Amino acid sequence: MTNAALTTDEALFQFLLRLGDNTLILSHRVSEWCGHAPVIEEDIALANTALDLIGQTQFWLGLAGEVEGKGRSADQIAYLRDAWDFRNLLLVERPNGDFGKTLMRQFLFDAWQSLMLAKLMKSTNIRIAEIAEKASKEVAYHVERSADTVVGLGDGTPESHARMQTALDDLYPYVGEMFIGDAVDAALVKDGIAPDPASLRNDWDDLVGRVMAEATLTIPQKPFAHVGGKSGTHTEHLGYVLADMQFLQRAYPGAEW
Amino acid sequence: MTNAALTTDEALFQFLLRLGDNTLILSHRVSEWCGHAPVIEEDIALANTALDLIGQTQFWLGLAGEVEGKGRSADQIAYLRDAWDFRNLLLVERPNGDFGKTLMRQFLFDAWQSLMLAKLMKSTNIRIAEIAEKASKEVAYHVERSADTVVGLGDGTPESHARMQTALDDLYPYVGEMFIGDAVDAALVKDGIAPDPASLRNDWDDLVGRVMAEATLTIPQKPFAHVGGKSGTHTEHLGYVLADMQFLQRAYPGAEW
Repeated sequence: MTNAALTTDEALFQFLLRLGDNTLILSHRVSEWCGHAPVIEEDIALANTALDLIGQTQFWLGLAGEVEGKGRSADQIAYLRDAWDFRNLLLVERPNGDFGKTLMRQFLFDAWQSLMLAKLMKSTNIRIAEIAEKASKEVAYHVERSADTVVGLGDGTPESHARMQTALDDLYPYVGEMFIGDAVDAALVKDGIAPDPASLRNDWDDLVGRVMAEATLTIPQKPFAHVGGKSGTHTEHLGYVLADMQFLQRAYPGAEW
Repeated sequence: MTNAALTTDEALFQFLLRLGDNTLILSHRVSEWCGHAPVIEEDIALANTALDLIGQTQFWLGLAGEVEGKGRSADQIAYLRDAWDFRNLLLVERPNGDFGKTLMRQFLFDAWQSLMLAKLMKSTNIRIAEIAEKASKEVAYHVERSADTVVGLGDGTPESHARMQTALDDLYPYVGEMFIGDAVDAALVKDGIAPDPASLRNDWDDLVGRVMAEATLTIPQKPFAHVGGKSGTHTEHLGYVLADMQFLQRAYPGAEW
């Protein structure tokens, strides 16, 4: 995709897919915990987080369908695309691992999402600003909760501390993609629709740095970043997510409830 | 399903689904090891076993489609049914666990399948007898190989012995279903098409008893048997198998290669 060939609407469609696919895939991952979390309170909290994220997905992908102008609904976009058409960050398709790793992934994403939504609330696109404002209230709670859990487990027992450090080390190479812009981002920055992803990095580093310090965890100093999700090059894990997530609409096309 | 309402063709269709679904679902489970087995030799052996089983599936489900008389191909039967229409034993949908558990499941099934095929080679239905004869050559090798591995790991290190005993204890409650007959079996026993499942039990106990003794493993003495697979009541695991296995035909209906 070259900058020259990209209209604002094309860039906007891709950007909305990125936002909606992030929340869709993370919602699915979080929902995998349903009935399996270590305590009932956490099980319900995770289910609620998944519901918040799927609600946000409906807004982002619904708007994506409007912008695309081909009459596709949020459901059709969510359930009838194959892996190469997904635009989510590789971070959110990482397998859950243990409870601590799931919450570490959640915090790394929540921290980014809270900053991104704060910027999008000032978008020149009023529809985006409205969705961002609504979502940001939920995400403010998500980031508070996931940060608390990261601190509680990181600064917990030797076992929980070791697991959280491993989780952070494993997930950190997937953080960089959140801050790397491309032609899609550039086309929207120009019109004040979306921020430059790189502009979120300092605030994210500050927030994550504070929480990790309190959690007695060490942030890896390796700058390597896996990339590809934002442009449709995914890990094998996404295929398995889609197989589960899309089964019903694939097996029973057009089913409603 | 009552005996009175069951014609021979209806019973035959169900019986062929059972045979073909056993090999289909076990083939999928075994194929999950592809690229993940502990050594290359075992990886290739497992892939070959999966291929043998999928080959047998084509014969059994192909014949099922002919008997049903609605023009469904083996592929359509395999990839376009939902869980409640599957007739495989619960044993073969059990998750793989570790390598030892996978081979324990394989041996428990191979031992049964080798005895079942020996009986089916004498079926009054010539098509069944022909498929059974072809398949029995492959299965003779499967059972030899899985028995050797069960002995090697059972009578191996303390770690491998403990894992194999756990595998046997976990899987044994799924053995009983192989020997419990119902109206479908009864309708076919009557015409000499298939054996009474209970008639295989003594030979299976002898074979499995000899191998477990050599493997220094203790066969559980609990008679409890999980049942349901043969009549379409499955565990949650089958749904995940189908979501993966059927994705391609569900997402790209009618795709061929």
